[in-house]
Parts: sequence; structure tokens; C-alpha cells
Amino acid sequence: MKNYLLTPGPTPVPPEALDAMARPIIHHRTPQFQAILKEVEEGLQSVFQTKGKVLILTSSGTGAMEGAVSSLLSPGDKAICVSGGKFGERWGELCAAYGIEFIPIDVEWGKAVDPEKIKEILQADGIRNMDNGRRIKAVYVTLCETSTGVATDIKAIAEITKNHEAVLVVDAISALGAVPLRTDEWGIDVVVSGSQKGLMIPPGLAFISLSDKALKLADSSKLPKYYFDFKAYKKSIDKNDTPYTPAVNLIIGLNEALKIIKKDGIDNVIKRHQKHAAAVRAAMKALGLELLAPDAYSDAVTAVKSPEGVDSAKLVKTMRDTHGVAMAGGQAQLKGKIFRIATMGYITADDLKKGMETLETVLAELGYKFEKGAGVKALEKGLAS
Amino acid sequence: MKNYLLTPGPTPVPPEALDAMARPIIHHRTPQFQAILKEVEEGLQSVFQTKGKVLILTSSGTGAMEGAVSSLLSPGDKAICVSGGKFGERWGELCAAYGIEFIPIDVEWGKAVDPEKIKEILQADGIRNMDNGRRIKAVYVTLCETSTGVATDIKAIAEITKNHEAVLVVDAISALGAVPLRTDEWGIDVVVSGSQKGLMIPPGLAFISLSDKALKLADSSKLPKYYFDFKAYKKSIDKNDTPYTPAVNLIIGLNEALKIIKKDGIDNVIKRHQKHAAAVRAAMKALGLELLAPDAYSDAVTAVKSPEGVDSAKLVKTMRDTHGVAMAGGQAQLKGKIFRIATMGYITADDLKKGMETLETVLAELGYKFEKGAGVKALEKGLAS
Repeated sequence: MKNYLLTPGPTPVPPEALDAMARPIIHHRTPQFQAILKEVEEGLQSVFQTKGKVLILTSSGTGAMEGAVSSLLSPGDKAICVSGGKFGERWGELCAAYGIEFIPIDVEWGKAVDPEKIKEILQADGIRNMDNGRRIKAVYVTLCETSTGVATDIKAIAEITKNHEAVLVVDAISALGAVPLRTDEWGIDVVVSGSQKGLMIPPGLAFISLSDKALKLADSSKLPKYYFDFKAYKKSIDKNDTPYTPAVNLIIGLNEALKIIKKDGIDNVIKRHQKHAAAVRAAMKALGLELLAPDAYSDAVTAVKSPEGVDSAKLVKTMRDTHGVAMAGGQAQLKGKIFRIATMGYITADDLKKGMETLETVLAELGYKFEKGAGVKALEKGLAS
Repeated sequence: MKNYLLTPGPTPVPPEALDAMARPIIHHRTPQFQAILKEVEEGLQSVFQTKGKVLILTSSGTGAMEGAVSSLLSPGDKAICVSGGKFGERWGELCAAYGIEFIPIDVEWGKAVDPEKIKEILQADGIRNMDNGRRIKAVYVTLCETSTGVATDIKAIAEITKNHEAVLVVDAISALGAVPLRTDEWGIDVVVSGSQKGLMIPPGLAFISLSDKALKLADSSKLPKYYFDFKAYKKSIDKNDTPYTPAVNLIIGLNEALKIIKKDGIDNVIKRHQKHAAAVRAAMKALGLELLAPDAYSDAVTAVKSPEGVDSAKLVKTMRDTHGVAMAGGQAQLKGKIFRIATMGYITADDLKKGMETLETVLAELGYKFEKGAGVKALEKGLAS
């Protein structure tokens, strides 16, 4: 049975990258690898849309998120953590792990944060500061919340943090290369991402871009850290090197994936994601299904409410085990209640068609009533537009 | 030009593992991947020679070393850090990063630690404890110090730590699968390793085994951590899962590499390393070259003093750039003074022959006088024995 991966990470890997990763391995402290690292760095800067260096870590995205706490802050610093899903919650968990007092902004799962809330807290912080000398040094947000398919208005938030000493840290793990993200233009201080989403290679690498404001914060950071110490990675990448043995073959694969993005052009890649996700949303509407986030959807992954009487866990399991089509179910409080269709990275229009046919088949098997073929038709119309 | 990798990590990757890593990627939260993880876990337990679970991290070996500090210790705990090279030094750096007071045992580079020194400090600690209540909770050592080619007598050290409340933590990154290491039998509490040495796959994965004594310490550990929190990995691996998205294709490649080790048998694999390393040492003697560690050599990597008047950095660079043979030079204080020939993992007898021929060629070019062919002859004799 052929497998179709429509999950929000890992996403399918293009054959060019698979081939490159299967080449005999080379040593990382060689001019040969340094040349690859230089190309990868330039490719990442172009996707991150930054002139600053992008640090390359061997870890999952969570490792880079941890570094964005431990490598930036110091004991006594405060932070704002915006959470509207499983991955937003992680910012608060990370701050708690390092004893950083944080002001939580908890958003209903399926909704996006109102940037004004962040503004109010930052303004109040300026006043409170006169009392205790402790300041908010970082605002942690999620661009695309993978667990709910919500996209956050990062541009508006960056407008606010620009005028405050706090850095804006954006989890763009499932957003990078899938939705608009103009790091330098919008003034985002820190962007965290991973390899297994829009960048189209297997999991195992994480990336961080840092503004000058963030680099300054990193210079004075006093929380304990070692492997995720951004200063060490910054010093190394300036010399096309890494502080510790990197995941050599993943980086070689990434170089091929970045070449594909470069050839297509990042703006066209984003437009393709927009078209694919809009087609998926149209298909859901045609099937009479409701989106979890109708007002704040992301083009990376679409979360759909399972219809009355259909357990989404069973739906997802049946599609995967009987038809080879892997979508994602709901996590935590959304378990059994939603399913998620990814449109990121190397997920093609044909993959989506196969996914939609299978979804219709299994929804019908599970007793959901709808006009057969309506979803596929709406999807195809959207893809052809 | 065909490249020969005789470096102490990354080491060559067998084609079975390369092929497996180039297969279309699968999702990690599936029965399909769980079955692979279960096989990998069993394979690792067999190589680690432990009945305990082996944790699988997506990071370089340094990440797992960090976890062996941050996930085991608490503020106020003390440690012993044995250092006789670049990687031994890392234990002290890690303790310092987390504010852990440590007693350094600095060994001359090229020598192994005398276990009696550890015994003396641990005994004195028991007496001092009555005064201040602070105790040595961990002894950090390196089995094969990659920078010097020294092997440490871990069995003897484990005999000492067994009778003390401190756990013995062994960096076996370049030792695992290359030299004898009987985790349970010898009573080693924590063994740290990585993927790109004896385990024959690319860098990007790290492994940790934990004894019951170490698990207990992890339970009460209060240093800040998140991504390297061993408790989360222990909880997950018990369910054939990982707490964060793992490096899926590296794990799939590892499964193939572990199958090769299983087929050969771990004892035969170790014997092959012993034979290869002994042949390399015999070849060096035949060439009139001196070992850096004649009294404490490791079978994973052999460090050789560059002859008078020959810069080892130039020797290594010429072999690599002109002949495609990659050996390692010296690091830190040994830069330019030694070269290192790895015998670990998938480095074959033929690779070693090619390496020795090239070494003779370039040594002659650089003006060193020796009996031409003597090194190759001694190597071949050793390999045939």
C-alpha cells in the first residue's frame, strides 16, 4: 500500500533530498562540508527573510524553543506567553522549567490572540517596573498553532514589541515556508523553526534567527545552558561551522530542499500553500464540515471538526490503516473531536486529491451523510483556480 | 575521487542504513514507527549490554551529556569530573554551566586516570559530609577519549562507585560498539553515546542508559531542563514513543545498523575492533612512529605522534585533499602534533589498507624517513592474524 503523508510534520521529503541523504557521509570539519553549510545558511536566510544569521541546531524544534528561553533570559526576567493550543502551552512550560515568571495570555483553542492584549500588558509593565525593577524581556507567541490550525497576526504584534525592550519570539515551526513571514521587514526578533514541515526534510534539525536586539539579550543571558547556547552557534556559523557534530546528512538533504524552494521562489511557494489550503477549506465546506478556526485559519494545516457521531481518532486510524492516507487527529482536549489536513511543504495537489477521496470514503463508512464527490469537486476547483 | 573516512565520527554508513534512510518518510505517531522503535530499543539494549531502557534523543552526543548533568543533579550537589582531553573537559564545562561544584581530576593528555584517585575523593567526601551535608552525587568519566585515543578502566571505577551513593556516568560516545562495555555486569549507572561512531549511522541521535540508582536520582533532580529531561524520555520509551518529534529517518537507519551488529554478534564486533586497532598500532611501530597513549590505548581510535618536522595538520590535509583519505588531526593543545586513525564502526580492513598506503605516501612526501611498505606490511599481517 502506498502511503500518503498529509500530517503536519513530518511531511513528505522530495526525492532530491532523499537521494542526497543517502550519499556516503562526509566529515563535518572539511572545506567540502563548510561549502554546503554556507549554501544552506544562505538558503535559510532567504526563507526566513532575514539578513541576520540563522543558527542551525541538531534537535527537534522544541530544543530551539528551549534555547529561546535559556539563551535569552536571565533569572528575574519576566515574559509573556501566548497560548492557544498544545504548542503555545510549551512556551509557558519552558519558562516554568527555568523559573521565569510569565504572564500567560490563554486564548480559546481555535482563536487567535488579540494583539491589543499584549500591548496592554507591555504598557502596564513599563509602569510597574518603577516598583520592582523586573521587566518583561520576551513575548513568546506561535505563528501557526499546529494543534488547532490557527494563524496569529505576527505583523501586528511586532508593531507593538518594536517599541518595547521585550523581544518578540515566534514559534514558526509549522509556519516557515508555508505562510507569509517577513522577519526583518516586520521586525521579528527571534524566529524558531524545524526541518520536517515547510522545509521538506526529515525531523532532526531546528533553526533560529536572531535580531540585533535578541543577540544583545543573548549576550547578557544568565540562565544555565550549554547545548542550546545561542552564542556558541552564532560564533560558529559566522565561520561556516557548528559547535558540536551536526546531523551531517540532514543538512546535506536540507541543501537540496532549499534549492527547490529557491528555484520556485519563496513567494510562489507561499502562494501555492494559500491555494492548497483554500481548496481544502472549500472542500470541507462542500462536505458540510465546520473548521475549528474559521476566523483565524492557517495555510499550513487545516483543523476540521469531526461531524456529530464520528470519532475523529477512528476516522484518522481507518484512513491510515486501510487506505494509507495519514492525516492527524486532535491532541489533548481536542482528541477525537477534530482531524487535521496539512498542506505544507512537499504535499502536492495529487496528495490532497487522494486524501479527499479517502476522507469521503471513510466518512461515508462511518455513517456521515453528505453529497458524495462534493468535497473532491470543490477541492479540484480550488486547485485549478 | 573516492573518499575514505577514517575519522573518529562521523564514520562510514553501511549501504543498508543509507538505503533505509532514503525511503519515503513515515509519521512517528503510528504503529509502524512504534514497531521500529521497539526493535531499535532492543538492539540498543543489546549493544549497551543492559536490561534497562535506553533513552533516544535527537541531538549530538553533547546534548545527552548535558542531560546527564541537568537531569540527574540538583542545586548543591557536587560531582567529580575526570578530564584527560577535549571531551573530558566538557564534563567540567557542563557542571560549571549548571552551577554544580565539581572536583576536577585532570589527567595528562595521553594517560588514563588512576581509579584510586576517584576512590580517595569519594572516601574523603563521606567524611566531609558530616560538616556541610553536601555530597558527591556523580562521577563523570570518559571511556574512550576521542581527542587522545585513551581508554579508561571503567570496570575498576565502577567497582568503587558501586559502594558509594554517587552514580558513575560514562561518556561512551566513541566507545560503544568498539570496546568492551558491560553496563549491567560492571554496574555502570549511566552510559551516554551517539549515533555516528560504532553505531555506524550519521550524527543526529544520542543515547543514554540509566540504572535504577540513576533513575532515582533523576526523579529528585531539580536543575532546570526541558528537552533533555530524562524523565520524559523514560516515560515515552516505556510506550515505544518519544516525547518530541524524533529524527525519524535516522532511527530507521539505526535499525538497519543494529541488525548488522546483531547478525555479527556484539562480541565479534568488539573482537574485530581489537584486531583492527592492534594492526594499526603494529603498523605505526613498523613505521617508527610513537603512540600518544602507549599504556592506555583505545581500540576505537589510535592517536599517533607526528614525527619530528612533520606538521600533522598538513599531513591530514594532504591525505584528505589529494588522496581522499580523511584521518583526524590533533585538537586544542595537540593541534599539529598528532594524527588520529579511527577503527570504529563500518571502517573495514580495506579502508585501513588504503589509509596506510596513503599515510606512507604522504609521510614520504613530507620528508619523513622510513622503510617504505613496512607500515602496510605490518597492518596486513595484523589484519590476517
